[in-house]
Amino acid sequence: MDTTEFRKRGKEMVDYVADYFEQLDKRQVYPDVEPGYLRPLIPDSAPQDPESFEDVLKDVEKIIMPGVTHWHSPYFFAYFPTASSFPALFADILSGGIGCIGFSWAASPACTELETVMLDWLGKMINLPEEFLAGKDGEGGGVIQGSASEATLVTLLAARTRTIRRVQSENPELTEADIMSKLVAYASDQAHSSVERAGLIGGVKIKNIPSDDKFAVRGSALKKVLHEDRAAGLIPFFFCATLGTTPCCSFDRLLELGPICNKENIWMHIDAAYAGSAFICPEFRHLLNGVEFADSFNFNPHKWLLVNFDCSAMWVKTRSDLTNAFKLDPLYLQHCHQESGLVTDYRHWQIPLGRRFRSLKMWFVFRMYGVKGLQEYIRKCSNAFRAGVTNRHLKFMFIGLQLFQGSNKLNEALLKSINDARKIHLVPCHLREKFVLRFAICSRTVESVHIQFAWKHISKLATELLKAQDKQQQ
Amino acid sequence: MDTTEFRKRGKEMVDYVADYFEQLDKRQVYPDVEPGYLRPLIPDSAPQDPESFEDVLKDVEKIIMPGVTHWHSPYFFAYFPTASSFPALFADILSGGIGCIGFSWAASPACTELETVMLDWLGKMINLPEEFLAGKDGEGGGVIQGSASEATLVTLLAARTRTIRRVQSENPELTEADIMSKLVAYASDQAHSSVERAGLIGGVKIKNIPSDDKFAVRGSALKKVLHEDRAAGLIPFFFCATLGTTPCCSFDRLLELGPICNKENIWMHIDAAYAGSAFICPEFRHLLNGVEFADSFNFNPHKWLLVNFDCSAMWVKTRSDLTNAFKLDPLYLQHCHQESGLVTDYRHWQIPLGRRFRSLKMWFVFRMYGVKGLQEYIRKCSNAFRAGVTNRHLKFMFIGLQLFQGSNKLNEALLKSINDARKIHLVPCHLREKFVLRFAICSRTVESVHIQFAWKHISKLATELLKAQDKQQQ
Ligand SMILES: Cc1ncc(COP(=O)(O)O)c(C=O)c1O
Ligand SMILES: Cc1ncc(COP(=O)(O)O)c(C=O)c1O
Repeated sequence: MDTTEFRKRGKEMVDYVADYFEQLDKRQVYPDVEPGYLRPLIPDSAPQDPESFEDVLKDVEKIIMPGVTHWHSPYFFAYFPTASSFPALFADILSGGIGCIGFSWAASPACTELETVMLDWLGKMINLPEEFLAGKDGEGGGVIQGSASEATLVTLLAARTRTIRRVQSENPELTEADIMSKLVAYASDQAHSSVERAGLIGGVKIKNIPSDDKFAVRGSALKKVLHEDRAAGLIPFFFCATLGTTPCCSFDRLLELGPICNKENIWMHIDAAYAGSAFICPEFRHLLNGVEFADSFNFNPHKWLLVNFDCSAMWVKTRSDLTNAFKLDPLYLQHCHQESGLVTDYRHWQIPLGRRFRSLKMWFVFRMYGVKGLQEYIRKCSNAFRAGVTNRHLKFMFIGLQLFQGSNKLNEALLKSINDARKIHLVPCHLREKFVLRFAICSRTVESVHIQFAWKHISKLATELLKAQDKQQQ
Repeated sequence: MDTTEFRKRGKEMVDYVADYFEQLDKRQVYPDVEPGYLRPLIPDSAPQDPESFEDVLKDVEKIIMPGVTHWHSPYFFAYFPTASSFPALFADILSGGIGCIGFSWAASPACTELETVMLDWLGKMINLPEEFLAGKDGEGGGVIQGSASEATLVTLLAARTRTIRRVQSENPELTEADIMSKLVAYASDQAHSSVERAGLIGGVKIKNIPSDDKFAVRGSALKKVLHEDRAAGLIPFFFCATLGTTPCCSFDRLLELGPICNKENIWMHIDAAYAGSAFICPEFRHLLNGVEFADSFNFNPHKWLLVNFDCSAMWVKTRSDLTNAFKLDPLYLQHCHQESGLVTDYRHWQIPLGRRFRSLKMWFVFRMYGVKGLQEYIRKCSNAFRAGVTNRHLKFMFIGLQLFQGSNKLNEALLKSINDARKIHLVPCHLREKFVLRFAICSRTVESVHIQFAWKHISKLATELLKAQDKQQQ
């Protein structure tokens, strides 16, 4: 295939995607297929001879689409939003074309430098304290991680190394293994499972701090656990605060927690994976107050800021905390500028070695929307939500429904009937002992009309469920 | 922006990328910019109001391109190849459009199922033992990781958990911390830095096994270290063998090492990140003999198999080893099929939670090239190489040059003059005490003519260097 053919087929692919978007509200949001559906539809092994683009594209519609859960359908209210925008798609085409692997400054200077500046732009948009920005010669700075899970892991590992070194310098008789076995990290009992996973990977204990009746961690709760753990000889070293928990979008109390962490030499990381994008709007920014106490902060533009997956933005105040935790420098990855202090080698900031040119997506999206356009988008989501769903406990853009107060069984049955009907798609969560239906605003193209439809649909199914139950009881 | 505008701009982007490819051999392979070049070229913060696509695209040429290292230039011989092909680019446009996040089967069944089948296809192409394939109900199977580094980390962590459980069941008096502190993992002194990094992350000791005079690890060398470490009370649990080491493409002796690992209850992982793609050619497949002893195997189609980054293929014989190491199941990620035994939830197989629809790239590439086309491509690379460079120690597709036998200083000076001249781009490596110039065949479009040019160019610079030295000595 030459570039002439590439132009032709590439444009057909763009058209296919455009058609897909145009027809998306007509596709069934959740597929009908059963596990194992795909294998019988395609050959057992790769073809020996080349097949045509047309044949492959035909099979996309025949074999792939019937098994796709359409995350960008306006009837998708499950999990969380995942970003999709035209500017990000353009940037990804470009990034694929350039195809550089930006693990170090020299591996493609533009890839590293645009990333550093984009993270500064984004940091300023949410009014992050100066210390988190790279500026011309700051000690802090930002990086694109693949996911919030990796950001939590990377910061936990950096905190682990920093703590081991400090404790060892104070107690030279302790081995690294001794210290490791005493380390303990913390997060809310509402925190995302990735925090527990980071503890598992890093080989350190991780404990839940009980949240209050608003599902937020208070300073007093952390203090109590710290007190017990210090008394038991443990070494608290890491606390992951959540802003916008996955089940119900609660916010840990940073202003209470931050000073405690600072005083106790505990690395405070903030995971705002989902809700963080809202901080670009001044009216939501107060929810980030207290970030000044944190060592690191993370949220996912790939969730709610129109930058396609993957793009998880993470900042640290002291970049050497990261590089100290990871730095290994074989000759084949060295370059002549690396000790200049001016350059950033992002491979020391992350788990993988290779990295794509992902900052292009941020650049395209920030410029083609403008800050005002992005704020408008965040507001559109919350407003569509408010307009569609009345009389509920509102949190920006999603809601926990316990339609049948006190009956998990009925709520479970309702969720099943909703998802079985295939008109909309939801997932549940647990809030303490309650089984809750989670309703999240996800698609960029969702309007109040879709939400109103969903609301009526849910009400209808709930009524049917109650009627059926009444009949059974008669 | 509506879909009409998306079609228009998307196609312009495709044309830009096509133009880029057509002119690539005319662009300077390595940029002239100095660290910090980009920041002064763009505003301090994101614009408030939207800018046009034209303005952004203009800036790509003005601001980005001057700082790009062109990995797909036919004059790029640095690091390792990174894959780029038209079918993969088409698939990435599609994957971006669908934009699903396939962390579980239910999150998009097609995303998970195509991946499982593509890894079976690829496994068959390299004649991997049946146990590594998923088939209809196998215990093994494959997964796409983002990088070889992550594959090594994930398998090391799985081995760590498996070993801790086994040792604990045999010695209930030992705590997890006791066992952790005794665990030790191994790799060649030629292994990629990612192996040492995996040990750092997982909090376990990692030791180098001395390689022989062909830079390969022999069974005897492993045995010796195991003997010493067992005597010292350590618990050997993981060995990472390398097929195609980064500095000089040496191959550890699997047929000697495998039986030792099996007997000693050591998880053998094989890292063939770079060379692995060659195993699709029957004439190179013998280099993989011994894989039958391994617990896990990994190579990067995103390096040399025309599937754009990121796509690192990893297989395990026992998938429950992975899921046991990681499995955490909050309600919001559960779905009704997950206990059926038929479905795969890939989030339990990897570090991040989210994942893109990457198997589309494999599907497009495998079908549009066909196995024969892919084999031809691998052979083209080795042949171009052989034709261009004579009388050198040949290994598929790259070579270590110590042009000035015995003089590291001269070789360093030569590399500097090569990279300063900006005609071609190389990176060095160390082989024991020697500073070596690494010459790798990277670009899909490289032909013998480019290699011959590079060869002449290097010879010319070497001659000049010698002349200058002679003058100095006079
Ligand atoms: C609060 C929170 N943290 C972390 C995550 C995980 O994000 P990722 O998929 O980027 O790892 C999520 C995902 O929903 C989340 O809601
Ligand atoms: C032998 C070997 N292992 C691992 C890696 C790392 O690969 P990745 O960038 O996919 O982590 C490389 C990269 O060159 C390699 O050559």
